[in-house]
Amino acid sequence: MNTNELIARRDSLFGAGAPLFYNSPIHLVRGEGVWLYDADGRQYLDMYNNIPVVGHCNPRVVEALAKQASTLNIHSRYIATSVLDYAEKILSVHATHLDNVVFACTGTEANEIAMQMAKIVTGGEGFICTDATYHGHSELVGSLTYSPRRGRKNVHSFAFPNMYRPLVDGVTEEELCNLYLAEVQSAIDDFASDGIKLAGIIMCSLFANEGLPTVPKGFMKRAAEMVRAAGGVIILDEVQAGFCRSGKWWGYEVMEAEPDIVTMGKPMGNGIPLAGCVARSKYVEMFRAQKRYFNTFASSPMQAACGMAVIEEIESRGLPAQITSVGAYLRDEILKLAPLSPHIGDVRGVGLFISVEWVKDRDSKGADTEGAAAMANILRDHGILLSNAGAMGNVLKIRPPLVFEKQHADFFLNIFKEVLLAEHD
Amino acid sequence: MNTNELIARRDSLFGAGAPLFYNSPIHLVRGEGVWLYDADGRQYLDMYNNIPVVGHCNPRVVEALAKQASTLNIHSRYIATSVLDYAEKILSVHATHLDNVVFACTGTEANEIAMQMAKIVTGGEGFICTDATYHGHSELVGSLTYSPRRGRKNVHSFAFPNMYRPLVDGVTEEELCNLYLAEVQSAIDDFASDGIKLAGIIMCSLFANEGLPTVPKGFMKRAAEMVRAAGGVIILDEVQAGFCRSGKWWGYEVMEAEPDIVTMGKPMGNGIPLAGCVARSKYVEMFRAQKRYFNTFASSPMQAACGMAVIEEIESRGLPAQITSVGAYLRDEILKLAPLSPHIGDVRGVGLFISVEWVKDRDSKGADTEGAAAMANILRDHGILLSNAGAMGNVLKIRPPLVFEKQHADFFLNIFKEVLLAEHD
Repeated sequence: MNTNELIARRDSLFGAGAPLFYNSPIHLVRGEGVWLYDADGRQYLDMYNNIPVVGHCNPRVVEALAKQASTLNIHSRYIATSVLDYAEKILSVHATHLDNVVFACTGTEANEIAMQMAKIVTGGEGFICTDATYHGHSELVGSLTYSPRRGRKNVHSFAFPNMYRPLVDGVTEEELCNLYLAEVQSAIDDFASDGIKLAGIIMCSLFANEGLPTVPKGFMKRAAEMVRAAGGVIILDEVQAGFCRSGKWWGYEVMEAEPDIVTMGKPMGNGIPLAGCVARSKYVEMFRAQKRYFNTFASSPMQAACGMAVIEEIESRGLPAQITSVGAYLRDEILKLAPLSPHIGDVRGVGLFISVEWVKDRDSKGADTEGAAAMANILRDHGILLSNAGAMGNVLKIRPPLVFEKQHADFFLNIFKEVLLAEHD
Repeated sequence: MNTNELIARRDSLFGAGAPLFYNSPIHLVRGEGVWLYDADGRQYLDMYNNIPVVGHCNPRVVEALAKQASTLNIHSRYIATSVLDYAEKILSVHATHLDNVVFACTGTEANEIAMQMAKIVTGGEGFICTDATYHGHSELVGSLTYSPRRGRKNVHSFAFPNMYRPLVDGVTEEELCNLYLAEVQSAIDDFASDGIKLAGIIMCSLFANEGLPTVPKGFMKRAAEMVRAAGGVIILDEVQAGFCRSGKWWGYEVMEAEPDIVTMGKPMGNGIPLAGCVARSKYVEMFRAQKRYFNTFASSPMQAACGMAVIEEIESRGLPAQITSVGAYLRDEILKLAPLSPHIGDVRGVGLFISVEWVKDRDSKGADTEGAAAMANILRDHGILLSNAGAMGNVLKIRPPLVFEKQHADFFLNIFKEVLLAEHD
């Protein structure tokens, strides 16, 4: 079958509208490390996928998975020590005040737990989030998705902090920080005047969905303090930002913020559905007492085996240092290429999480969504996989598996340079 | 560490309140087929776990899992033909009008999809369910959990149909059916008078959580017709009932009901988080158009490999016929033992899904929850794993892996008989 026939077959089974990447979607058959291969044997450098964090088909993870699947896999109402070992391990890489964990299967489920927990702990209903966020697809978590400022009863959004497209031009970073904080305060105040008790604030610790903006220094820490002072809890979503993506274990370390509840997902099991929520034990116990939470596939020996293998791989390969150096190199080199195109408005990010913002031109900063999408498609045709994303879809999102090395950065940079030069031809 | 130390360690990591089975929880280390083994080498016959439907650590599933995990595992915005093959396969074992599938990771997610879909299709908000049901733990799906009759705004429950504890004594089966149907009609009418538009009805097709009651003939089919006539859609939850548990592929075949949306979960991947929702394509397309649903870990080659291996195993081993014969044998033999105990009030079920209802005595039918829990604990001490469940917790739920054979039934029956005889000593 050719690609169009495969797409027609897919639509007939899944219904039209199941999302696919690229104008010409890719029929994949194999993955290894940072590489993916299509049915024609074509090789692609994966610079998008953050689930296979220690590489596609990582041998350590595959071996741990196969061994556990052939030994024991069971739900969590029996005792399995490997699950306890993994719980201890995941807590050991978090701030010490986050001392209990609830495992789940997906990021959506982790954020459901976090939001339900915040409601129980505070007795509140109101959540504050940014105006360009996505935390998951359940009805509760989905109520946050691209929420208009005051359009939903229990959700008030604020303009996400952004140094490249500031709320007001011509102010200092500190003044800008205060302006964004005033947005958060206004959300708090509006809940108060509506008589809706605050449950908390939920943010991706690196504002990934928003486009990974550069944030005024101190914003997240101070926003957290304001919400806490108003009686709300602080939920930070590390589904994209966490697991050393930034070179640090968690985005909240980059932001120097203190969360009460942290959610984790995608990279946690390198492809096995594994997610979770760490929080202060007092919060977890209140949640468990009220909900008697049980999740069929979560807290299983299979999740634990894969989760542990991922952390061991990160630690034994010294990935945090590599991520920091390769990420900085990649960002710096992209910056050097920026003058080649009038459409590169901003290059930013941390570790192996880099955004390249596409604009009509650098003066107007007009979002060039079509240009970013076109560039993703051009790069796909050149064997590089990434995607356009962000609040306006005009950001090239660079977020490779974390085993991405300098040689892979160079492979990309050579092609990217060629493509940018060809733009002018 | 002894068991108490392990429990203390577990509480310190998960928070007190993470549920465990039995007065003396079991520390498991290995599983194979219908058997589980604890850290002391003790063997248990598993008569409870419905996730490892083709047996703990089934070699075909483990091999498929390991092979796929070492070849390709990726999210669904690329094309992978194995995922299409599996989608085709799962649809082929459903009624033909259910012609599209949406994959998810957990039963909760599948029921979220179903309820969101029903809301989109009807424009309604109101759901009807039984008064002793559980369909999952998200806020939306959890709103159904043991809902009081009219205690929640968008959920109206009705007394679940039950021949053993009928709504009214001394009526014929047909009269009783009409009485239960009147309950459903009353829920429909109350939504109408509240001005809440009906979204649909959601039922486990075998009322598993309710305790697997014997249901007046025709109830589910007629209830579905009533709800459809009132503009609602019919969601049947096959998370427990499906995958040949009854000897037929789906509980809706046993009940001769026609669902619009069917949800699946637990046994689907034999332990890999795999769930899904099949529905009329028109419904799925409306859902996809509005929600642009994407689930990170779902519709993956890994899910497809395990899901396909499970169906192949069911088919190649001829399990449906075996389930029907072994299930009937087991139920009949338990019925023969019933006179040994004054506490066995009812023995019922279909295929390898059997309930034994525990009562103070057969005349009063008073629910003996403590007795059922005590029996589960005694059997655990005799190397048999099952649990007490049902609306009042007084039902012994027998729901083994589907590779359960006559020899395993005999192993259980011998021990159960001994235990019942010992009750009188």
